[in-house]
Amino acid sequence: MREPVRELKIVQRIRDLAESGHRDRRITRGIGDDSAVFRPHANEDLVFTSDFVLEGRHFTLQTHTPGDIGYLALARSLSDLAAMGAEPVFCIVSLAVPGGHASGWVGQFYRGLLRLADKYKMTLAGGDLARFDRVVSDVMCCGRVPRGEAILRSGAKPGDGIYVTGELGGSAHGFAIRRGKAWGRLLRPQPRIEAGVALRRLGVSAGMDISDGLSLDLHRLCIESRVSAELEFNLPIAAGASVEEALHGGEDYELLFTASPGTRVPGRIAGLSVSQIGVITRGRIGQVRFGGRVLKSKGFDHFS
Amino acid sequence: MREPVRELKIVQRIRDLAESGHRDRRITRGIGDDSAVFRPHANEDLVFTSDFVLEGRHFTLQTHTPGDIGYLALARSLSDLAAMGAEPVFCIVSLAVPGGHASGWVGQFYRGLLRLADKYKMTLAGGDLARFDRVVSDVMCCGRVPRGEAILRSGAKPGDGIYVTGELGGSAHGFAIRRGKAWGRLLRPQPRIEAGVALRRLGVSAGMDISDGLSLDLHRLCIESRVSAELEFNLPIAAGASVEEALHGGEDYELLFTASPGTRVPGRIAGLSVSQIGVITRGRIGQVRFGGRVLKSKGFDHFS
Repeated sequence: MREPVRELKIVQRIRDLAESGHRDRRITRGIGDDSAVFRPHANEDLVFTSDFVLEGRHFTLQTHTPGDIGYLALARSLSDLAAMGAEPVFCIVSLAVPGGHASGWVGQFYRGLLRLADKYKMTLAGGDLARFDRVVSDVMCCGRVPRGEAILRSGAKPGDGIYVTGELGGSAHGFAIRRGKAWGRLLRPQPRIEAGVALRRLGVSAGMDISDGLSLDLHRLCIESRVSAELEFNLPIAAGASVEEALHGGEDYELLFTASPGTRVPGRIAGLSVSQIGVITRGRIGQVRFGGRVLKSKGFDHFS
Repeated sequence: MREPVRELKIVQRIRDLAESGHRDRRITRGIGDDSAVFRPHANEDLVFTSDFVLEGRHFTLQTHTPGDIGYLALARSLSDLAAMGAEPVFCIVSLAVPGGHASGWVGQFYRGLLRLADKYKMTLAGGDLARFDRVVSDVMCCGRVPRGEAILRSGAKPGDGIYVTGELGGSAHGFAIRRGKAWGRLLRPQPRIEAGVALRRLGVSAGMDISDGLSLDLHRLCIESRVSAELEFNLPIAAGASVEEALHGGEDYELLFTASPGTRVPGRIAGLSVSQIGVITRGRIGQVRFGGRVLKSKGFDHFS
């Protein structure tokens, strides 16, 4: 006989954790119903994104605690909100874990996730819980922006400067050495929410986060904007990282953006350095050049 | 060297498929950016839900085509919108597949999913695509209801009638025999969207979908409403199914709801039969009785 008691108890525990965290008043119904109910405001657009974290691809059970995995699951999805210049509102979290892991493990996963959610006054509004032979999570985040002001990939124009926040290659370096500050940063990356909001207010022309490496992500931005890009040599390279790691390393979660020549881009935004790394050009759509040559995109491809 | 060409092509293909489907005008930005952008209307609430489909748990690659899996992934999530009486608006789809499956398989998955999405004029607005050694999908659906009118689990009162749409146990029976109409229904379940909208307009007191079996799901509804339930013997049992299958079988995706004695519940709603199967009582919270005895919840428990 299959007893539902265990699942009901686990869901109740998640609900208690969620209710001890921030509760947005506009979530009129959270965990405990078939769906979460949200009351939108006028004059704002909502942005939605979802991201997987998959055992053996984005983490392993040997290197990451359950809390690290919960934190990472939300951080990856939040980085896409940061890319749009959005402020986080709520998340819907789907989690599958092996039966043996159930209660304590699941509680630690949610505590890690809620630690980051609370920082942004985000509500854990619902999701799915399932048993599977591997740990898999998918986090959907909802954020808000004033109407029509989301930062898109498609707004870059020839002549715009290309910029990045922070430093590049740190995560690739951390992955290679698996220790120190670079490794800690890879375990618990900081989504650039505050910087994204500041860039939206600044009126940047296009933007995205760097999750799969600068070369691939800039290529994507150029395709959406139907432009090409010329990179300069003065990349902000993280301590210990190589130029290769800065160009192609994934999971830095910094923001890549473009701004028209008339926009005064400050040297620091929300505590992060901001560096101009190139200029948008009118060349072949999607092409990225570095040091006078075409840069092949070697960033992380999920299907290579 | 990792080449991004393949992933970019697959994403472009998904985008072409999505754009050939229904495009809600309020999705001002869909696939191609870091997040989808949605412009909400005033005077409505939005409801959000997500559901996994996991290889080996909800389907197998031997019994289900990629189109069946895509259809099922959306149907499971839509059933939660039906439970709230919501009209579907858009979905965000995360899909992980083994590298070997990539392009054709992924296209068929999305075609199966979009066939159902188009039926409800739903937009495929974004998601995540990843490589994994198992097929995993998580579908987040957004629906809309007039402000404050979502059907909740928590509104049932002692004296309310308990009702279900359609017949019960058909999916459990289909799973047991793996052929015929019952099996076809298990492959491509029909989310009860139209019935859910009609029940919302009728003003039912509480409701949910039956995904894990009547005994378990009614227990959950009773807990949320802080009431108990007395079932009658005249359950609407699907052809070939047993009473056990009707009481405890999962994945029927019919709607379970309660209505006050003053509500005139019709015998058919949106083409489905509607049967009263019991009454809400003032007993021990969460207890479900059937034939004068306490009914143990044997429904599908994801952690048993």
